[in-house]
Amino acid sequence: MNSKVITALATPNIAMIKYWGKRDYTGLNTPNNSSISMTLDETLNTKTTVMFSDKLDSDKLYINGVEENIHGDNVSEKSKYIKNTLIEMRKLSGVKENVVVVSENNFPSGAGIASSASGAAALIYALNEALELKMDGKQLSIMARKISGSACRSVFGGIVKWNVGSHDDGSDSFAEMAFDVQHWKELIDMIAVVDPDTKKVSSSIGHEATVRTSVLYKNRVPFAEEGVTKIEDAIKNKDLDSLSKVIMRDSNNMHATMLDTWPPIMYLNDSSKEIVYKIHQLNDSQQDKKCIAGYTFDAGPNAHIITTDEHKEEVLTALKDVQGIKKIFESHQGVGPRILPENESLLDENTLTPKKMK
Amino acid sequence: MNSKVITALATPNIAMIKYWGKRDYTGLNTPNNSSISMTLDETLNTKTTVMFSDKLDSDKLYINGVEENIHGDNVSEKSKYIKNTLIEMRKLSGVKENVVVVSENNFPSGAGIASSASGAAALIYALNEALELKMDGKQLSIMARKISGSACRSVFGGIVKWNVGSHDDGSDSFAEMAFDVQHWKELIDMIAVVDPDTKKVSSSIGHEATVRTSVLYKNRVPFAEEGVTKIEDAIKNKDLDSLSKVIMRDSNNMHATMLDTWPPIMYLNDSSKEIVYKIHQLNDSQQDKKCIAGYTFDAGPNAHIITTDEHKEEVLTALKDVQGIKKIFESHQGVGPRILPENESLLDENTLTPKKMK
Repeated sequence: MNSKVITALATPNIAMIKYWGKRDYTGLNTPNNSSISMTLDETLNTKTTVMFSDKLDSDKLYINGVEENIHGDNVSEKSKYIKNTLIEMRKLSGVKENVVVVSENNFPSGAGIASSASGAAALIYALNEALELKMDGKQLSIMARKISGSACRSVFGGIVKWNVGSHDDGSDSFAEMAFDVQHWKELIDMIAVVDPDTKKVSSSIGHEATVRTSVLYKNRVPFAEEGVTKIEDAIKNKDLDSLSKVIMRDSNNMHATMLDTWPPIMYLNDSSKEIVYKIHQLNDSQQDKKCIAGYTFDAGPNAHIITTDEHKEEVLTALKDVQGIKKIFESHQGVGPRILPENESLLDENTLTPKKMK
Repeated sequence: MNSKVITALATPNIAMIKYWGKRDYTGLNTPNNSSISMTLDETLNTKTTVMFSDKLDSDKLYINGVEENIHGDNVSEKSKYIKNTLIEMRKLSGVKENVVVVSENNFPSGAGIASSASGAAALIYALNEALELKMDGKQLSIMARKISGSACRSVFGGIVKWNVGSHDDGSDSFAEMAFDVQHWKELIDMIAVVDPDTKKVSSSIGHEATVRTSVLYKNRVPFAEEGVTKIEDAIKNKDLDSLSKVIMRDSNNMHATMLDTWPPIMYLNDSSKEIVYKIHQLNDSQQDKKCIAGYTFDAGPNAHIITTDEHKEEVLTALKDVQGIKKIFESHQGVGPRILPENESLLDENTLTPKKMK
């Protein structure tokens, strides 16, 4: 017997106050500090189709047309977390069949834009629907967090706050919408994709290494907590000057703790630095040096520039001579995940494999 | 009447634990933490000739054949400190005449190698001799510190420790030789000069900005103090593994606090990063991953790689494919400043100007 074929879409989020450093490394992904982010619109998205079927002899996962190994001991941490989630949600539902998961990003994985948040959120959303679990936002957020910490924020639209929580089981560490898309709908994220660095440290290894080795990290935690409150105030008041400053300081602060990690983690490259300088120049040239844009960098060299529609052209002009920018994506706030109509299924139901294999 | 014409030579030093952040900004240059450095040999050096003469209507300073303005309100901080030093040392000696100072570096100022430490040490050394002040090492060190903090370490040879001190007047904040050149004479500094960054923040502005704005900086101070003790132990035991690690961690730590400064200070560029990766790779490839070399960066993108003669070729091999390295200087430990013979004078005594004007 086959379950319904369900397809969900979810979008990335860009953290204004970053999540870096976990309390738990056993699959809970509970953080050391609260964080706050903007969920992006569907310019960049992940679609995920799931179907449970007794014709499957094991759970199957396909990402961008390639089968991922999620069984055995030799799998990645992320695959392990996905497998555990499949087991946990199936158990909650009483369904026994194995599942096939087909997931696709509309942006190239080489673009340096992380797909783990949108991917995990889309998966949880689709599973919840297919298994008829009727989970609420809190439950969905906790479930997404277990696959990828920051995914717990992609379960909601608008401006989303992830409360650090304190319980050992992670039951109070979940995200909530702080402001809906309508509150300040002019906000945009301009994503400047730059030449990727050849040396990469996976963020899950990085989290652990920073907490264990950086002597500066312990001062980051209270700074980030304060930052979340400042971002909430800035967004409440639509204060772009303050918002931009707090965003930039938090990004620099996180990357500083990365540099202080042993061995050092260095995600910013010369193009990233050039963007930083250009945004400072742009802000310094405003009346009273009021900031009109703020950069922030995740675990990579691509810049996210938070600004408003009003200042978009000025930002583009400021960046036009930066060497190494390959593309600039623009995204407003998104409304969070949604279930797609049946005809958007990514699954070939006859073969139980993706319609598009690589 | 003219005084004797005195010429002194001094050399730069490379800090293994860095000086970043001052207690005093009024001209004392007292630091927030102790530091320890290796004085370099004469591969890179500054020569400074001084002469006091009643034919001069004011003090004159020529650096690399260009007259520097040291009078009036509009001069640089460094020029102000030099002027104050001329006044202070002349007062101590009872000499009344004005002085002409001619200073030359044997390395291009565009090479990104700071000449302030060797320059200040050579000046103090020459003035002490010309004014017959017979200052001891401690007094010379304090005097050099007032021109440029790290210059207080270039007054001595070998491995030099600058004790942080606690007195408000700076009287207990001076350098001392911790190990002479003979103790571990195989130590070398390989200076990889890379393409300079176009954006620069002067280090005197940077010191102040980091202390004032970085929320991570306060954890640097005890870390650096501990680091000095670790460096002393490593050098005492000729433990290259430990020495290299402590050097690298301190450099990363300092640059992390710079990145956390507002606005951020970013001295490392892609070539610097590439060197960092190559040195980590080289160390990781050793038996038991014992470090055989350690990088360190001052307020600029050039790498100083501390190693021993034994491993020099391995380091050169490791760096050979790094893009952007323009030149590699090699330096053993130096013995500190010395007075040069009369025929090395840089001064044309007839015109009281440099023999070589630009």
